[in-house]
Amino acid sequence: MGVRIGVIGTGAIGKEHINRITNQLSGGEIVAVTDVNQEAARQVVNDYSLHADIYPDEASLINAEQVDAVLVTSWGPAHESSVLKAIKAKKYVFCEKPLATTADGCMRIVNEEMDLGKRFVQVGFMRRYDSGYIQLKEAIDNRVIGEPLMIHCAHRNVETEDHYTTDMAITDTLIHEIDVLHWLINDDYQSVQVFYPKKTRNALSHLKDPQIVMLETKGGIIITAEIFVNCQYGYDIQCQVVGEEGIVKLPEVANINVRKQGNSSTAILMDWKHRFVDAYDKELQDFLDSIHQKGEVSGPTAWDGYIAAVTADACVKAQQTGQQEPVRLQEKPVFYQG
Amino acid sequence: MGVRIGVIGTGAIGKEHINRITNQLSGGEIVAVTDVNQEAARQVVNDYSLHADIYPDEASLINAEQVDAVLVTSWGPAHESSVLKAIKAKKYVFCEKPLATTADGCMRIVNEEMDLGKRFVQVGFMRRYDSGYIQLKEAIDNRVIGEPLMIHCAHRNVETEDHYTTDMAITDTLIHEIDVLHWLINDDYQSVQVFYPKKTRNALSHLKDPQIVMLETKGGIIITAEIFVNCQYGYDIQCQVVGEEGIVKLPEVANINVRKQGNSSTAILMDWKHRFVDAYDKELQDFLDSIHQKGEVSGPTAWDGYIAAVTADACVKAQQTGQQEPVRLQEKPVFYQG
Amino acid sequence: MGVRIGVIGTGAIGKEHINRITNQLSGGEIVAVTDVNQEAARQVVNDYSLHADIYPDEASLINAEQVDAVLVTSWGPAHESSVLKAIKAKKYVFCEKPLATTADGCMRIVNEEMDLGKRFVQVGFMRRYDSGYIQLKEAIDNRVIGEPLMIHCAHRNVETEDHYTTDMAITDTLIHEIDVLHWLINDDYQSVQVFYPKKTRNALSHLKDPQIVMLETKGGIIITAEIFVNCQYGYDIQCQVVGEEGIVKLPEVANINVRKQGNSSTAILMDWKHRFVDAYDKELQDFLDSIHQKGEVSGPTAWDGYIAAVTADACVKAQQTGQQEPVRLQEKPVFYQG
Amino acid sequence: MGVRIGVIGTGAIGKEHINRITNQLSGGEIVAVTDVNQEAARQVVNDYSLHADIYPDEASLINAEQVDAVLVTSWGPAHESSVLKAIKAKKYVFCEKPLATTADGCMRIVNEEMDLGKRFVQVGFMRRYDSGYIQLKEAIDNRVIGEPLMIHCAHRNVETEDHYTTDMAITDTLIHEIDVLHWLINDDYQSVQVFYPKKTRNALSHLKDPQIVMLETKGGIIITAEIFVNCQYGYDIQCQVVGEEGIVKLPEVANINVRKQGNSSTAILMDWKHRFVDAYDKELQDFLDSIHQKGEVSGPTAWDGYIAAVTADACVKAQQTGQQEPVRLQEKPVFYQG
Repeated sequence: MGVRIGVIGTGAIGKEHINRITNQLSGGEIVAVTDVNQEAARQVVNDYSLHADIYPDEASLINAEQVDAVLVTSWGPAHESSVLKAIKAKKYVFCEKPLATTADGCMRIVNEEMDLGKRFVQVGFMRRYDSGYIQLKEAIDNRVIGEPLMIHCAHRNVETEDHYTTDMAITDTLIHEIDVLHWLINDDYQSVQVFYPKKTRNALSHLKDPQIVMLETKGGIIITAEIFVNCQYGYDIQCQVVGEEGIVKLPEVANINVRKQGNSSTAILMDWKHRFVDAYDKELQDFLDSIHQKGEVSGPTAWDGYIAAVTADACVKAQQTGQQEPVRLQEKPVFYQG
Repeated sequence: MGVRIGVIGTGAIGKEHINRITNQLSGGEIVAVTDVNQEAARQVVNDYSLHADIYPDEASLINAEQVDAVLVTSWGPAHESSVLKAIKAKKYVFCEKPLATTADGCMRIVNEEMDLGKRFVQVGFMRRYDSGYIQLKEAIDNRVIGEPLMIHCAHRNVETEDHYTTDMAITDTLIHEIDVLHWLINDDYQSVQVFYPKKTRNALSHLKDPQIVMLETKGGIIITAEIFVNCQYGYDIQCQVVGEEGIVKLPEVANINVRKQGNSSTAILMDWKHRFVDAYDKELQDFLDSIHQKGEVSGPTAWDGYIAAVTADACVKAQQTGQQEPVRLQEKPVFYQG
Repeated sequence: MGVRIGVIGTGAIGKEHINRITNQLSGGEIVAVTDVNQEAARQVVNDYSLHADIYPDEASLINAEQVDAVLVTSWGPAHESSVLKAIKAKKYVFCEKPLATTADGCMRIVNEEMDLGKRFVQVGFMRRYDSGYIQLKEAIDNRVIGEPLMIHCAHRNVETEDHYTTDMAITDTLIHEIDVLHWLINDDYQSVQVFYPKKTRNALSHLKDPQIVMLETKGGIIITAEIFVNCQYGYDIQCQVVGEEGIVKLPEVANINVRKQGNSSTAILMDWKHRFVDAYDKELQDFLDSIHQKGEVSGPTAWDGYIAAVTADACVKAQQTGQQEPVRLQEKPVFYQG
Repeated sequence: MGVRIGVIGTGAIGKEHINRITNQLSGGEIVAVTDVNQEAARQVVNDYSLHADIYPDEASLINAEQVDAVLVTSWGPAHESSVLKAIKAKKYVFCEKPLATTADGCMRIVNEEMDLGKRFVQVGFMRRYDSGYIQLKEAIDNRVIGEPLMIHCAHRNVETEDHYTTDMAITDTLIHEIDVLHWLINDDYQSVQVFYPKKTRNALSHLKDPQIVMLETKGGIIITAEIFVNCQYGYDIQCQVVGEEGIVKLPEVANINVRKQGNSSTAILMDWKHRFVDAYDKELQDFLDSIHQKGEVSGPTAWDGYIAAVTADACVKAQQTGQQEPVRLQEKPVFYQG
């Protein structure tokens, strides 16, 4: 019998995860669904032919006996409440980013989880499951390039919707680099600074685009991250780590080469959803497998959610002040070490 | 409720498929297992914690009411009998290559399936599910390069075991190109010829390695295929299609780039199992989904199995005669068209 | 004082070499010019502001005391006569391909040169001066890939003029591969065979295009060479050598990468003149330097011209017979060894 | 008759240029040589078999009637004096970097040249003659990527000699990026800032390595330049320009691809001298051609030398202050525009 899952929030990402668990992965079953829009929840149950009950609210879903684990895919401000309720009920939680909208909110979850004494919460930072990043981490951990000294990375989107604001370049976009890079180099951020290059004419007036974020770690590694969310040409994720003895670089997406009309070309993805599709599958399969095999979740922790929140806050502040801003992280609890 | 699967043959590839269906894919369940070595079958049930019954022989497994579909992963000479029995019992079949060891055997399956009037059999040619080949086919079908005129491809393995013989370069190795290339260009083979370049010192005395196989299609496309199964440096699959307006080429495997000690390098796979791991997942998921959604299988057909058998026979003859040998295919039945 | 050069033939390639020697290279000076079209010769002297005398015919130019070396850039059928006259007069010769239009003609030059006892003749096979081919040769000679076993190469042109005929695919196009490949692998051709894939609609009715030429060496190496002279997409030269321990491949032309509109692209040359421009410079500089420093020429020899002629003849015959044709080379004289 | 050249300074770079002009390029001749070490000058004349007179000092060489142009390849602090003397004597000057060791020194040369009313001075910034940078500039000028917004580049050397100090990362290393980048984007620097990542253990204690220099232009373009002069793995020059509509990137050096022992590799240069060898040839050929054809030099101007000096000064200051430092350039004279 697989892990019985209740879903809180049946928007776009919720539906994708429901589809994954139902039609592509092994060992999980959607048995419960809720959404602030009950009609939307009903629609999803219908569309995916789920054998799932529709609950009126998160509390009733979380506490339902048939629910082993909760998938939190509601909008960000609702996450903290759902996660806290779920772990208090000793239900496993897979929570999409952000874990909570504030660092304090993340800490409340961290503390609750530590009180319970085992890992209930996995945060949806899927890049750690991407084959390219995994290879980068293996190379770094195996000291292929010696000590890492600098990282240059780029996060480029084709275009943004009108409601996308300057701070979202941090909280919605860079947030993935914030998580994956400290994991990659086993280090913590110490300070951040934001620079604004010449603005592209393809961004709306309210949006500063592109931006360069410089993050410095406690170990002295400097990361320069380009965020360019209206780059027009494609969804493109670059990452290069410069070490004492060499360099490792994220691979390009493996598309066919076409030689035609004077050019040798390879297609670049236009839709971000395709870039990490394998990583999304793997993070959820890992969630299911870990519960099944260990009775405890793996992957990005509540503490990682806290780090992301604190670092993103510092970056947003640095966007406003133009100054180098400290990243003030609490001491990492033993519970989350190793 | 998922597709209930019985497995005939619990050797290496059988175990891999059992693991896939049990732990990675959605919608299938291993409910029955048999093997000429009953102890081996028991071991597998145990190792993978299957809720599966062990049957004494293929007949009893095939005819078991609880079995919806049969996975034929026994040794090649046993395939035909299992497949025929299974489809006569109206069970879906996923059969690893070869469908049968002779063209006549394949035709018996083809005829049986046509009599039944719907597709029961999927042959395990996984490359059609590889993202690179799919992109090649889309490009060709969308006329990105105009009419295809020539193909150059290479199939290279690190090394072979001692029992690997010259004809296995066709029946075990080139067989994958034989299947995927005619699908790629929507054409049929007309003749084949085999050339033996200078032999590598890394092959045993009984084995001719490398070999070059030239296949010509009815439409006049010429394919030159290098087979080199003791190439030492890695498992490497290359394919380039030259068309009237341009060229398309299979991508390299997406591994990280390392700059170190005067070289910019990317790792080449050493183990063939890793190269098409996604394709293996997808072919089986497609098998399960097609049964579930359409009550009929998709993917490579019994007819494709027949084409592979006839073409491989011609290649093996050409290995011996040194001459151009015809590929004498019967007319493609309407049943398998479109 | 530089090498004083007389030019026989002031057509396109003649003018390019005159320009090179006059404006880009060191140690040579055009002092004499002749052409069957005297007016054309006068024009060239004028256009390049040469301090050169115009001679009425090749004999007077060759025998002029002020001429140290002769550049033969007339049309092919005239080459043999010019080269023979020049070496009889003990003048150095740089002769564009072909050295002579027949194997016998080449042998007459070879014999004359051997009688004279030193190397006077360099044939204009520029690819041996291309950095990529030089690196390939170094790798092979240094046994980076062990013994070479197979070569796959491609020679693709954007399009041909109307007068380009099927045999010119050998004598004008493949001729460069014929020369550079036997040099690359230190081996001699034994037999050749020509295959005609499906014809491109972009070639005129009288021209078979593309063609595949298979050359086998005395050492057993098999070369498959694609010639495709109306490939539309660009001028593209590919060469890959498969050895016992690995593979070496000619680099792509180093052009900038552009990411734009969903594609990562690099321009392919459209004009063949740009591909080997450095090699043209280097072959002529080597001609001048060798005369200056050693009083003897280096580079491709009259014997190489003979090999090219015999091999091209066999290929043209193979085009017509469809059979494997022998390449009957005489024993290599000691004079040309090492 | 070619340009008659006098050389001031016969050290390593002097000898290379003498060799180029004498043995590889067209239209120049070394007729005069001087060096503070007269014996060294004599040696060079001998080694390269020059028909050149040895002068006791720069003044006598510059004023010699037989000298048309002066090559300044002495040590940096001596450049200004030589250049000023030369242009006062109306001799053309090719001056290796730096034009002068101070911004004031450069301005004295600029003013003298403007007084003379024509361009006499070319500064040895060879990258502008590199095919890759030329392609980048063409793409930018042709608006292939729209307006440039950001540049990321890297300048990496295998290792440094002991006397290499932290400021030399600017004055000897970044100086090439300083010159080529403002030319590339037709913009001027406004401010600079220097960051020190974690230091490599492969640098001596007195040297900060690597460094990141951030340069901002008047137009708002932000350049992040990594300087890493003990990177161990090779000499590697990277440059990527991000524009509103796309990205252009400098090509890798065109070396052969080797597949061997589980890796697909391309050699990286270990010696910086090989990377821009064509560019060195072309800058000097352009110097000779421009004098010959126009009676005036082309290429990087005295004003470019001034820009480099001012920008390098600001970078060195920024190394010390850790702050953003302004680049205070005077208004560009009309003389140097267009």
